[in-house]
Amino acid sequence: MGMQHTPLTMSRIISRGATIQPNSEIVTATEDGVRRQTYMETVQRSHQLANALCEAGIEIGDRVGTFMWNSSRHVEAYHATANMGVVLHTVNIRLSPVDLEYVINHADDKLMIVDADLLPILEQLQERIPWVERYVVAAEPGFEDWETTLPNTIDYEEFISGMSDEFVSPHIDENEALGLCYTSGTTGNPKGVEYEHRSQFLHTLAICMTDAMSLSATDTLCGIVPMFHAMGWGLPWAGLMLGCKQVLPHRFMSPDRLVDLIAQEQVTLSAGVPTIWQGIKAFLEQNPNGCDLSHLSRLTCGGSAPPESLVEWYWDELGVEMIQGWGMTETSPLGTLARRTSKLWHMDAAPSQLTQNSCKAGLLMPGLELDVFDEDFNRLPHDGETVGEILIRGPWICSEYYRDPQPSKFHKDWLITGDVGSIDPEEYLIIADRSKDLVKSGGEWISSVDLENHIVAMEGVRQACVVAQPHPKWDERPVALVVLDDSASVTVEEIASHCALKFAKWQLPDDVLFVDQIPLTSTGKLDKKNVRSQLEQDGYVLPDLR
Amino acid sequence: MGMQHTPLTMSRIISRGATIQPNSEIVTATEDGVRRQTYMETVQRSHQLANALCEAGIEIGDRVGTFMWNSSRHVEAYHATANMGVVLHTVNIRLSPVDLEYVINHADDKLMIVDADLLPILEQLQERIPWVERYVVAAEPGFEDWETTLPNTIDYEEFISGMSDEFVSPHIDENEALGLCYTSGTTGNPKGVEYEHRSQFLHTLAICMTDAMSLSATDTLCGIVPMFHAMGWGLPWAGLMLGCKQVLPHRFMSPDRLVDLIAQEQVTLSAGVPTIWQGIKAFLEQNPNGCDLSHLSRLTCGGSAPPESLVEWYWDELGVEMIQGWGMTETSPLGTLARRTSKLWHMDAAPSQLTQNSCKAGLLMPGLELDVFDEDFNRLPHDGETVGEILIRGPWICSEYYRDPQPSKFHKDWLITGDVGSIDPEEYLIIADRSKDLVKSGGEWISSVDLENHIVAMEGVRQACVVAQPHPKWDERPVALVVLDDSASVTVEEIASHCALKFAKWQLPDDVLFVDQIPLTSTGKLDKKNVRSQLEQDGYVLPDLR
Repeated sequence: MGMQHTPLTMSRIISRGATIQPNSEIVTATEDGVRRQTYMETVQRSHQLANALCEAGIEIGDRVGTFMWNSSRHVEAYHATANMGVVLHTVNIRLSPVDLEYVINHADDKLMIVDADLLPILEQLQERIPWVERYVVAAEPGFEDWETTLPNTIDYEEFISGMSDEFVSPHIDENEALGLCYTSGTTGNPKGVEYEHRSQFLHTLAICMTDAMSLSATDTLCGIVPMFHAMGWGLPWAGLMLGCKQVLPHRFMSPDRLVDLIAQEQVTLSAGVPTIWQGIKAFLEQNPNGCDLSHLSRLTCGGSAPPESLVEWYWDELGVEMIQGWGMTETSPLGTLARRTSKLWHMDAAPSQLTQNSCKAGLLMPGLELDVFDEDFNRLPHDGETVGEILIRGPWICSEYYRDPQPSKFHKDWLITGDVGSIDPEEYLIIADRSKDLVKSGGEWISSVDLENHIVAMEGVRQACVVAQPHPKWDERPVALVVLDDSASVTVEEIASHCALKFAKWQLPDDVLFVDQIPLTSTGKLDKKNVRSQLEQDGYVLPDLR
Repeated sequence: MGMQHTPLTMSRIISRGATIQPNSEIVTATEDGVRRQTYMETVQRSHQLANALCEAGIEIGDRVGTFMWNSSRHVEAYHATANMGVVLHTVNIRLSPVDLEYVINHADDKLMIVDADLLPILEQLQERIPWVERYVVAAEPGFEDWETTLPNTIDYEEFISGMSDEFVSPHIDENEALGLCYTSGTTGNPKGVEYEHRSQFLHTLAICMTDAMSLSATDTLCGIVPMFHAMGWGLPWAGLMLGCKQVLPHRFMSPDRLVDLIAQEQVTLSAGVPTIWQGIKAFLEQNPNGCDLSHLSRLTCGGSAPPESLVEWYWDELGVEMIQGWGMTETSPLGTLARRTSKLWHMDAAPSQLTQNSCKAGLLMPGLELDVFDEDFNRLPHDGETVGEILIRGPWICSEYYRDPQPSKFHKDWLITGDVGSIDPEEYLIIADRSKDLVKSGGEWISSVDLENHIVAMEGVRQACVVAQPHPKWDERPVALVVLDDSASVTVEEIASHCALKFAKWQLPDDVLFVDQIPLTSTGKLDKKNVRSQLEQDGYVLPDLR
């Protein structure tokens, strides 16, 4: 042995930010402004929280749940549990009551930290989650006088008050569990993904690479992606390691509040799903003056593919690069990433080429392996045309689900992602669709995502959602649900002829339905399962079958 | 187990560059120009080399030596051996014959790849290194007709010719040896540092962070630091992972050739020791026109601290950031790194502050631990004043020397670096000196490095070297050796009064000796051991003892 075999535990990196930039801030949005604390304070408070959790009987390997928005206290929960060797179960606050009951009981959460404004959601469940021994309530301004029917509660500040602000991490193995996050299951129960110290350590280094998000200690980072969604895409860990200023929106997720926060705090990099950026774009178009977004340089966009029109708008109007990332809860989440300029020859490429780069799912992160396969698990050519199942493996990819291994979701040591796509000759991954959302028509596949992104680029269209409907002859046919801008008057015919510019006739939607809104999943994606079941309930029939 | 425990072996990352940028180039300087090959060709040729080495009987764990300049074939040797699980021993071509004999025999190199122009050096030793079974000779243009007295030789191209350009890596453990590099010992025999797959995997991710060198696939990288010196600071691995264009100077290390290479190939980032940058500065001052260095943005500087005047000159004259890195063979090598702008508050700081940042050894890389200690191994305050022994530990730090553990160089699991320094309140490491080069005068320490950097900032001074000389009363006193520019006429008095601007009277050199040159070590540092023994041989006596 020539080199030290130091375990890759998170405790080795998550206090570095506070050491090198102790006065850097973590800013949390409040009802009428923000509150601030420094990294030094954050780490001291995290140590207090760790000591309080120890005193409350929480031990190595126990699960502590959070039911929280993005806030400094949520960051403290990340830090404290990682240092303790305790598993942080970040519960998705938008799950249905049935799923909430399932995940809290399945994870066996011993203690939960809950934002006071979210207490009513848990109160509805309280008889059904009897194994949670204690609730620690985090009260933002305006909620100091919280009351609840939940048993055995204590205020967060009271819980940590008087505790030592020093904490020495116990020795833990790098393969011990760090975090637990459930996927929002579209079929069956939610499935738990258990992150480990080693996997997140490596993921944290990887996302701080120049060729990833270029995250730096000099950035001001606004993680809009919820911290209960795949560990906030790893951004809270990266922030703690680098010490970059973090700006957290808590429950104030409306476009006007987000824009104000980004402008006021001089955010340089933000991260969220496309619907967030669509909303902010719409707000800025209606309010073109009055907010200075000149510090903003990059938006990381994940969860689903951003339409080209959106990528183009941010670059042309704001000079902001939209960085598309692809991944999922099972991949920690970063699998691939697309920058405008990823290769030497891009330095001289036309702007339209660079925009197209950002519209692909991106290049594979170092250390991972990914490929597209046919149904017999033969690798497919990288021609940008041949579409197959995307499989991925590597040191931050899930190997089995928590207490529910689900071997059918794996092929040998590969994760079957459930996404289908192609890889082009430049080695960019291009996602065609979720395999369950593909429209299978006459033996061919139609990408619902491609149709949506094309429709949403039309003037006056705010949102589009394409789903399959059963057809006796073709098996399935696509139907588009469209939300228009308030004053817009786009017709079905206009949408059809717009689609005909790009798609073959058999790929065009059989019907266009104008709707007021499209339901979203708990992670902000189009909820196509819900859309399909709603159409079924309404007795929807395709035009040529009426 | 929730995550895949994929072994962190180099084979998982070193072909990524060729996959995503197959046409990116590796450029090697030749007698009258350059030769080029693509990453795709490089990886195919590396696979051919791996197959040839297998056929030559090289097995997992065997040592293969290289005796080479920086070139595409040296990169191929890195790639092939890493993929095979073979240990690459990069022999320092500038070692003395005695040390060369020692390291080749101590490492037990079974086969050596040798640049044809370097054959005469090994021929002198050939009876004393009888266990090397085979020599593969790499012939650059002009050396195709090499001849040698070495036994059992074959031309590199003939060796790999006809071999398959596909190679499947065997399964190896992440803690298997990857590389072997000997420190240029100042006392006793050279000591071997054995790098492992895991340690270099982590080091490679770390140096590609934005807050490290910001290395990107869009960079053009010119590694001037020899690839036999701490694995070329890890840059060949990073290049292979990212696919960035690499420009390698081979034996053409004169300032005019280097400047020409950097300009012609549009290099963006280069790396080398301060003496290289001093030489290039002198050349550019004499030849201010005629070379376009506008693509160059960063110079990574390691091995010893760059003088402030040098850092300032590159920034003011060329707009080039000098990034100081600190480390050593035992630290893989990157331990700390100093960017002009490392913290949020630097964004508004004065240029002089930013230059001073680059003159410090830098901030600790994530994943490592470092501190300054007194002689009883108590941690010292981070006040920027208190100087102590620097100890470091972490996943890419040496745990023992190869076949010669040397426990006295370690304290518990810390490496005793042999450097002394302080840590300032901003958490920057500041190197005072090598512990053996400090001048101990009247119970106080005088930093030879600080004096040298101050003297070398004077107009007309090219180089300065401060060493201790024995003194009966004060124990030791400093003496400065100074090399002047050709036409300069600086006096002893001028140097003394210049030093008095910054240093206390007791810290000033007792004597200044003008010399034609100062001997350098095999890694390009001032060879103070040699300077001291030369002064002793010459019967040098301090002025007040004459």
